[in-house]
Amino acid sequence: MADAKFIVGSSDKNEDLLFATKFFACDDFVFMQKDERKIMVIGEFEYERAKKEAKVDELIKDTELNEKHPDVIGLYFKLFKEFGVESVAVSRNFPAGIAKALTDRGIKIEFQNPLFPERAIKTPEEIEDIKRAQKATENAFRAVIKIFEASEIREGKIWYAGEFLTSETLRLTFDIELAKNNCVAQATIISSGDQAAIPHCLGYGPLLASSPIVMDMFPRSKKNWYWSDMTRTIVKGKLSDEAREMYQAVYETQMQCCEMVRAGADYGKIHEFSKKNLKGLGFETIVIESVKQGYTHSVGHGVGLEIHEEPFSRPDTILKPGHIITIEPGLYYLGIGGVRIEDTLVVTEEGYENLASIPKELIELP
Amino acid sequence: MADAKFIVGSSDKNEDLLFATKFFACDDFVFMQKDERKIMVIGEFEYERAKKEAKVDELIKDTELNEKHPDVIGLYFKLFKEFGVESVAVSRNFPAGIAKALTDRGIKIEFQNPLFPERAIKTPEEIEDIKRAQKATENAFRAVIKIFEASEIREGKIWYAGEFLTSETLRLTFDIELAKNNCVAQATIISSGDQAAIPHCLGYGPLLASSPIVMDMFPRSKKNWYWSDMTRTIVKGKLSDEAREMYQAVYETQMQCCEMVRAGADYGKIHEFSKKNLKGLGFETIVIESVKQGYTHSVGHGVGLEIHEEPFSRPDTILKPGHIITIEPGLYYLGIGGVRIEDTLVVTEEGYENLASIPKELIELP
Repeated sequence: MADAKFIVGSSDKNEDLLFATKFFACDDFVFMQKDERKIMVIGEFEYERAKKEAKVDELIKDTELNEKHPDVIGLYFKLFKEFGVESVAVSRNFPAGIAKALTDRGIKIEFQNPLFPERAIKTPEEIEDIKRAQKATENAFRAVIKIFEASEIREGKIWYAGEFLTSETLRLTFDIELAKNNCVAQATIISSGDQAAIPHCLGYGPLLASSPIVMDMFPRSKKNWYWSDMTRTIVKGKLSDEAREMYQAVYETQMQCCEMVRAGADYGKIHEFSKKNLKGLGFETIVIESVKQGYTHSVGHGVGLEIHEEPFSRPDTILKPGHIITIEPGLYYLGIGGVRIEDTLVVTEEGYENLASIPKELIELP
Repeated sequence: MADAKFIVGSSDKNEDLLFATKFFACDDFVFMQKDERKIMVIGEFEYERAKKEAKVDELIKDTELNEKHPDVIGLYFKLFKEFGVESVAVSRNFPAGIAKALTDRGIKIEFQNPLFPERAIKTPEEIEDIKRAQKATENAFRAVIKIFEASEIREGKIWYAGEFLTSETLRLTFDIELAKNNCVAQATIISSGDQAAIPHCLGYGPLLASSPIVMDMFPRSKKNWYWSDMTRTIVKGKLSDEAREMYQAVYETQMQCCEMVRAGADYGKIHEFSKKNLKGLGFETIVIESVKQGYTHSVGHGVGLEIHEEPFSRPDTILKPGHIITIEPGLYYLGIGGVRIEDTLVVTEEGYENLASIPKELIELP
């Protein structure tokens, strides 16, 4: 086992670093954990802020290790020397340039994935953070639904405030509502028709009436940088029988998958069940005109400081209390559109707590 | 020279990848550039979206290279074999775990920093994107100024809408205004008093009257993910003579530094000038009570897909037409506060285009 865990990066992009220090910064700094001791090295410029904000045991100014214009690699060696470290555990995404410089100078590197297995088990505080993001999502979702309610159908599209309602307009509405709750979304999906049949297509242009509208909403709370994830599929007008059957199949499958969630259950088996179940309901996953259609993704993923993180619904993934995961089966067929229903759940001993409070029955707006 | 450039990552965190493909995604995908040919490999799930959105010469489905449940490292080798690649150029931050797997199997790795030197020279389209973010900043700034104008001074603080005006409230106002313009800010700084003397402190709690209020605003446009950067220091009430002298020194220095900007100028020398000038005006950079105070940072940095990117104001950094850089001297003293003035400039043959249109004279609100 390595002498210490070691990270170099910026915590706006390296979630392990954010998890380890609770210090949000856009520029690189250094973290080392030896036994249970958390040590952080940062430039003089950010030192005073870090003193107030970083949750570590020891904070070192880089100039204390290296007098002036420090050669950064030299700085790491001084740190290793000071703490008697000859081998470090790093994550797979550790910068290769630095890894080479370390091994060239005799430091042993051991890859450890995940670097902090405890990150997957959320504390009550972390669950509160995710709930904060979820609440903002639901507020924003309701604001968008109000717009759909106040709209009317014209020429197969949706007419609102003197123009056709577009994905872009609604995404903007969604973002403004999130901002009011100190949350931020990167790429909210609001799509209909064939666009919704491409699961990660954001949606562009006028939304279609009587076509499933997929809204996949995953904002991040700016308070502590935790994400939440929810998808609902709604319709303005009436769904075709085909689309309605798709909705019903996804709805039932999603509910059944949720009921399988509990500590000790295998997330991979829940995925397998969702595949088999949708197939059993008559929805094949096949390549039509060289495009894979049907159920083209997995049943879910963990949510935390990353929007996609451990645990993933891979084979032999045993759920534990405090895991936060999504359950999100979907169906996608060109010519009909897409349907996805997604909740974020906290795994408990007996089952789960569903963080989403928006009903999953089809919302049909006349 | 390596046979090809190679990136594995997600373009929400890897700006080289976003630059190379224009494809925004939260999950990992693969990019290779051989000669001028851009090749991208992505999972079947994202293939249809990538076909529409990615700006590459060749898009390959991972299942075309590897039949099923691909061993990702094996996939890279099939790609290298197909294109006759035996050595790859990667950036310093390439994942070390993958680098090791490649070198273990005989692929030569060469670090190249930056991987795309052309990223520092902005195209007219990129400049438009940065202008879009800048415009959103200025709209949001004006909204915040209106709140200051409508406020009054009580007990040395700022009173607005029945309570003391806080950094948090104004940050929220700022974020909502940005959202209206399809922009997003990570960590807007709105701070006063001793908080503003810590340059990256976001600011918390009630803002002080008659104390410099630093507003450092750096939103990212969600259209193409370019950032902009502007800082203004304002006051509600009257500045003390000391703070006013600080403002005047920073103001004059910032203007003089801007006048030094042109193609062929040395950005490092502009930094050196700013240091010397502030010192000459009587503002020493010294450690007082173990905190470094005075002019504690550099004069600026490049702005683009990253908020801090090439060129940096290091020695021997020759500016070129199309570089986009900040000029942002500042002064920080505990007991007085902080002053920073920052513009984002496009370097031109003859000088610069200043993207900021908000005046730099002290905004004093009665």
